[in-house]
Amino acid sequence: MRIIFILCCLLLSFPSKANIGDMPREQQLAMQYMEALTDHDYTVLRRFYSRDTVFYDKTANTTYTGGRHIIAFLQRAHEGVLEYRLNVEHMFNTGSLVVIIGSYRLRGPGDQYGKPGKIIDLAVPGVTTLKFDNNTERLIEQMDLMDYQTMSDQLESQ
Amino acid sequence: MRIIFILCCLLLSFPSKANIGDMPREQQLAMQYMEALTDHDYTVLRRFYSRDTVFYDKTANTTYTGGRHIIAFLQRAHEGVLEYRLNVEHMFNTGSLVVIIGSYRLRGPGDQYGKPGKIIDLAVPGVTTLKFDNNTERLIEQMDLMDYQTMSDQLESQ
Repeated sequence: MRIIFILCCLLLSFPSKANIGDMPREQQLAMQYMEALTDHDYTVLRRFYSRDTVFYDKTANTTYTGGRHIIAFLQRAHEGVLEYRLNVEHMFNTGSLVVIIGSYRLRGPGDQYGKPGKIIDLAVPGVTTLKFDNNTERLIEQMDLMDYQTMSDQLESQ
Repeated sequence: MRIIFILCCLLLSFPSKANIGDMPREQQLAMQYMEALTDHDYTVLRRFYSRDTVFYDKTANTTYTGGRHIIAFLQRAHEGVLEYRLNVEHMFNTGSLVVIIGSYRLRGPGDQYGKPGKIIDLAVPGVTTLKFDNNTERLIEQMDLMDYQTMSDQLESQ
């Protein structure tokens, strides 16, 4: 039953003409990485990061460099999040650069967002680009573009 | 009649709850700029560029710096294009950084694309970010992410 539920989620989350196995290698890597990111699977994430990996939110103008700092940031960001999921609307790559257009679904206690005692539910449109090292398959750079205005509009109405 | 047609095009091209006048100033600037870009209006474009403006296609890994080089590149790229239009699917900004998700429609003779004697018609999904200078309202940086795989798939079938 649980397996069926997970499969349904996958089907809902990834638009696709094709199985993951049919995707270009770079897009497969990107999906594995995004899954680890939304599952808060730090063991897998650590394998993707090196000391030079750059995690860059262009819309928030913040940068973290190196696996250790990135993981520390993610642990803070994920704190108390009950559900974190990426709904991929379109994905493409040119070589080792993968572009994902979609929206990030967040559900969790509102404490971090100035809404204590409430469960908040957000769907934030965003673009994530991932650049992988061809040889090591590690992440060179993640760049995010997030629609924080929509996020704060959604927060306001909850 | 022509005005009605143009209005219809505008309505079709910009998804929107709001009039352009209700948009944040940065998004208005972005629309004016994108209009000049797709109209090949170099007079208006020149006003947006400075000597330091960076035009960066992250997916093609090419960069042009300064209005003069950018305009020269655009003139080459636009050569022979009959129709060039941006269909905006989602636009947002944080401060002076505007993010546009949509697709670029291109129609023109296939000569440049290895299809001589044919009129080709492409709809290329892409993301464009524009960063403006708050004071001068000039463009600091344009960054493009284009789905060149879809473009070449579409070319192949024409």
